[in-house]
Amino acid sequence: MAKNFSSREDNYSQWYNDIVIKADLAENSAVRGCMVIKPYGYAIWEKMQAALDKMFKDTGHENAYFPIFIPKSFFNKEASHVEGFAKECAVVTHYRLKNSEDGKGIVVDEDAKLEEELIVRPTSETIIWDTYKRWIQSYRDLPVLVNQWANVVRWEMRTRLFLRTTEFLWQEGHTAHETKEEAIAETEQMLEVYSNFAENFMAVPVLKGTKSPNERFAGAIETYCIEALMQDGKALQAGTSHFLGQNFAKAFDVKFLSKENKLDYVWATSWGVSTRLMGALIMSHSDDKGLVLPPKLAPIQVAIVPIYKTKEQLEQISEKVLKIKKALEDKGISVKFDDRDTQKPGWKFAEYEFKGVPIRLAMGPRDLENGTIELARRDTLEKSIYQITDIETKVEHLLEKIQSNLYERALSFREEKTFYIDTWDEFKERVEKGGFIYAHWDGTSETELKIKDETKATIRTIPFEGKAEEGKCIYSGKPSSRRVVFAKAY
Amino acid sequence: MAKNFSSREDNYSQWYNDIVIKADLAENSAVRGCMVIKPYGYAIWEKMQAALDKMFKDTGHENAYFPIFIPKSFFNKEASHVEGFAKECAVVTHYRLKNSEDGKGIVVDEDAKLEEELIVRPTSETIIWDTYKRWIQSYRDLPVLVNQWANVVRWEMRTRLFLRTTEFLWQEGHTAHETKEEAIAETEQMLEVYSNFAENFMAVPVLKGTKSPNERFAGAIETYCIEALMQDGKALQAGTSHFLGQNFAKAFDVKFLSKENKLDYVWATSWGVSTRLMGALIMSHSDDKGLVLPPKLAPIQVAIVPIYKTKEQLEQISEKVLKIKKALEDKGISVKFDDRDTQKPGWKFAEYEFKGVPIRLAMGPRDLENGTIELARRDTLEKSIYQITDIETKVEHLLEKIQSNLYERALSFREEKTFYIDTWDEFKERVEKGGFIYAHWDGTSETELKIKDETKATIRTIPFEGKAEEGKCIYSGKPSSRRVVFAKAY
Repeated sequence: MAKNFSSREDNYSQWYNDIVIKADLAENSAVRGCMVIKPYGYAIWEKMQAALDKMFKDTGHENAYFPIFIPKSFFNKEASHVEGFAKECAVVTHYRLKNSEDGKGIVVDEDAKLEEELIVRPTSETIIWDTYKRWIQSYRDLPVLVNQWANVVRWEMRTRLFLRTTEFLWQEGHTAHETKEEAIAETEQMLEVYSNFAENFMAVPVLKGTKSPNERFAGAIETYCIEALMQDGKALQAGTSHFLGQNFAKAFDVKFLSKENKLDYVWATSWGVSTRLMGALIMSHSDDKGLVLPPKLAPIQVAIVPIYKTKEQLEQISEKVLKIKKALEDKGISVKFDDRDTQKPGWKFAEYEFKGVPIRLAMGPRDLENGTIELARRDTLEKSIYQITDIETKVEHLLEKIQSNLYERALSFREEKTFYIDTWDEFKERVEKGGFIYAHWDGTSETELKIKDETKATIRTIPFEGKAEEGKCIYSGKPSSRRVVFAKAY
Repeated sequence: MAKNFSSREDNYSQWYNDIVIKADLAENSAVRGCMVIKPYGYAIWEKMQAALDKMFKDTGHENAYFPIFIPKSFFNKEASHVEGFAKECAVVTHYRLKNSEDGKGIVVDEDAKLEEELIVRPTSETIIWDTYKRWIQSYRDLPVLVNQWANVVRWEMRTRLFLRTTEFLWQEGHTAHETKEEAIAETEQMLEVYSNFAENFMAVPVLKGTKSPNERFAGAIETYCIEALMQDGKALQAGTSHFLGQNFAKAFDVKFLSKENKLDYVWATSWGVSTRLMGALIMSHSDDKGLVLPPKLAPIQVAIVPIYKTKEQLEQISEKVLKIKKALEDKGISVKFDDRDTQKPGWKFAEYEFKGVPIRLAMGPRDLENGTIELARRDTLEKSIYQITDIETKVEHLLEKIQSNLYERALSFREEKTFYIDTWDEFKERVEKGGFIYAHWDGTSETELKIKDETKATIRTIPFEGKAEEGKCIYSGKPSSRRVVFAKAY
């Protein structure tokens, strides 16, 4: 299993790709830039979806579904949005094929040309605000708190499985509010939800903050984000929540009659996370032996492998193991008892290790005699012998411990890779080595773009937790009142 | 709420549309033929998804995700499939837009023309079998039991909300097997799953059987189906399960090495249900007062409305009602306590009635004195006064009763509308009035098409439950060994 598999040090990018492919998470398809998400990868995504969906509903949101196609003209209505999104996209121009005249295949039927081209949604603000115009007339119709789980398409030139694909899966929340304050509170609430999800489910520590104007969502007044640090020292934007002001309400003429009987434009937010989170998950915890999954998102939390020579031994082991399986399942733990006779135990150990199963149990003839079971932790690779008495409680506690250990480990890593830098030479050197760099910035796009040109580092976030501190811009030397976080990013 | 609302007798089609729109289930969008599924409608779909998804997983299937785009050439590979699907579809020809030269908008960038056009999937057999070619080499890789929840696009000329839309949501199962027998068993198993779901969750009785060759899925050897009868006497195909033989394996060259070390093509099935089920649900149970939902699929199972004049009364009622709400929720029942002060009780009663909430409770000052609560059943429109002692158990039992009552009612209706007909004149007359007609057929496509031309009735299914019976074809008079089911259909 782990053969022909790159180490992180040798080639991080190849290592990532090997994990995705060899752990059966996803693969490339016949369509350029579009991936196939395989059952094991999709099972992790389903766990992410379930946790997020519950958090959205607990905060009062409902799901709905909007069309995949957006009329081309809709993109023109919000000026910055068209620049950001409408350009690199899949364009539907015809609605019929016909047999070719030479009889050898099918061709586009030129008689079936659309009057107006349709764009496969790269994001849904426009079609949704065109809909909200019908839904919202009065303050009684507000707030609208809607989320959509959907596929979107952005025509990417360079793609990487999960991290950047032409089609990807995501959720996009789109809310409408009476006041600016309420919309900002929603934007902040959803950033909290994302950060809570990243830290407590994915075990990935994140920085929270806002984006610089250059990195803002096309059409937003303010973009809030969570940023994670990958093992190679590059940053990954893991989720964004946008305060859209009245931009889309104005573009689609969505007004409401207030309690005071005054007509005003509606205030908006949008927020999303995508299958890109799969990339963040992989690159936060996995190691040279393969995938490492936090228990809360692992499709199989415990794998049990019997070790036996005779049929009688298998029967005796199965009897004991099935009781343990049942006791674990009663605690809501997902268990796979792998009694296939087509593979040897060693092969199975390697398989579950490679696929990141948090705990692997193994029972052999000696265990039968001693009333014990062998337990292997995927996060630390430690093995121990446990008495099987009350093993389900031990496993339950250990799963919690693995979950928090992964978070702590990722947090320590991030702390080691966090630097406060005050000189340009140090900055350039550090950017090359990776990590989050807290540095002063003069607040101009000009400087930000020059830094990007010279180092490829961008401002990942203007962090909430940063305190006011007088200083000088790392690049221009102009005065600055706070540090921002720079890094090279995915 | 129920104003400006058509009755079923006046105009069934308008009644259907009014329910969909006014009960906030779905609406048309700015994109021709594409609907917006509104939160209340989507919540019902989510309940359907959850129940089906569990049934798929309980029968050993896993979810995965395949690209939305399919290269045009893929459709050519399976001859009947291209005829059935590739013609009326959304064709992506370009991947970029640019600013127009007059500066007034955006236009398609002719420099970004795709070498090969991409089709927005109308169904995924081709792209999936192109993928399975990489997944399957040996009998050890079989069976592959995969399902996908996705959106698909079929360019429909005449669309109706849920029943026939250009874009719709569905699930498509695609399985691969070693043997013909195993594939047929899978096809049959999934038909059972669908029929179980229709009858036990949707409370919609269905006929199970196969399709005539004319009505088969494009690319299938045999199509199994479930057929339901709507209140207007028209049939609705509610789900299909296809035995695909080796057609797609041959088209995409998917062979496996058997246990006997022999190379053979893989055997396939596919099966699907879609948001069309929403239409079947509405047209099976709803009445002239609005939507009627079976409890198992109702987003709100119990609505509680307080009736009060003073703040003190509301407080006293709330105290009692919140206890009831908690007791119901502890039983897994979804409850909405509607204490909005913006609407009167009568308005709320009409609202929940129209939206098909199975049980509505109301508590007023007199109930407070008497320790009672008013209960209204949506299915029968009966109202009764209940003692609140152990009300949660009474409600729980009543929900079960409503579920089975809806099924029994729909079954009685179908039985009343089921006819055994032996003469052509009677047949023509009956077709006009609606219902399932069991009649003899000579087994030829020619006759089937003539009957369709003359009456618009099609063979809905060759039912499993029909017994062998010698007879003469209703149309040609030629000998027939069994009756098939005719009806006009959605």
